[in-house]
Amino acid sequence: MDLKETEISSQQIFQGRILDLSVRTIKLPNGETATREVIKHSPASGVIAINDEQKMLLVKQWREPIKQLTLEIPAGLIDPTDASPLDAMKRELNEEGGYKADYWEKVSEFYSSPGFCDEKMYLFYCDTLTKLTDKRSLDADEFLTSDWYSLDELKNLLAEGTIVDAKTIYAITVWENMLLSGRQSDDK
Amino acid sequence: MDLKETEISSQQIFQGRILDLSVRTIKLPNGETATREVIKHSPASGVIAINDEQKMLLVKQWREPIKQLTLEIPAGLIDPTDASPLDAMKRELNEEGGYKADYWEKVSEFYSSPGFCDEKMYLFYCDTLTKLTDKRSLDADEFLTSDWYSLDELKNLLAEGTIVDAKTIYAITVWENMLLSGRQSDDK
Repeated sequence: MDLKETEISSQQIFQGRILDLSVRTIKLPNGETATREVIKHSPASGVIAINDEQKMLLVKQWREPIKQLTLEIPAGLIDPTDASPLDAMKRELNEEGGYKADYWEKVSEFYSSPGFCDEKMYLFYCDTLTKLTDKRSLDADEFLTSDWYSLDELKNLLAEGTIVDAKTIYAITVWENMLLSGRQSDDK
Repeated sequence: MDLKETEISSQQIFQGRILDLSVRTIKLPNGETATREVIKHSPASGVIAINDEQKMLLVKQWREPIKQLTLEIPAGLIDPTDASPLDAMKRELNEEGGYKADYWEKVSEFYSSPGFCDEKMYLFYCDTLTKLTDKRSLDADEFLTSDWYSLDELKNLLAEGTIVDAKTIYAITVWENMLLSGRQSDDK
């Protein structure tokens, strides 16, 4: 079965700072037409940052769409001035945590909710961290704190429903998986 | 540090079929004001469905926001007529796969991208599946096929970049983790 849909027209509804909204008319595989509400959103990077005590870095911040404080892995939109998703992540780890890391690897890349939005996230792993003395400033409208959590603490936070962010829940599962597989820092 | 932000006003830009967009003016922790572009989106359910051959069910469909075919776990928006997220998932497993399952458990719930959107997803695990003879119809604008994949096949699809959907990548990691932890069907 040919599942492809074809765009016939697109009406832009809104062009914002971090997202655009349009309503697209498409041709379905059976020849009928339908509409799709589509968000275009800047791509982002996130990181599983593990320190020498085998703890993961999370940041606490207010999320207006769900009107609650969240615990999330360090992450941020990729700026036009960032040379790459990894470069963006190194900048964010500095801004949000005040750290640099000597070991980096790519974990995965994915679309956060491709049914309505093109937001793409690049997820990295890093360790061998050093606290920076010359931490970069956060954005003017960005307020957050950061702290370290062991896997047991993270599992408790998950079980009690304190961690509610998809990429962070995925990141914890990836890290647990690395530990279960017997992946150690000296395997690198 | 108090990180809470307070909504001062909200301007609705668009009210659609699956999402609404508004621009909110908020008061930051330091007393300054800023704006936030906020999407309200219906909640959804998704499922890790494993058959007796230890294969996972994925559906293939066209995703207009990223203009490509994706492989994703069965999932769908929770309808007002669904009694619960689990009830919605049972309906979707019937519509998208044509199956019913005798064993169900809740895996987690999360917001897909809480920085700009309130879309919440409820993730379930199920096994002990039976093919239905009275499969429900898909929505009129929904076209998809479904198939079964072993963990090795899924890892290859991940490695080659064929699977790009966040909840599906997370679901595969959860399932791998269950297998690594020695979780067997007879542990239930």
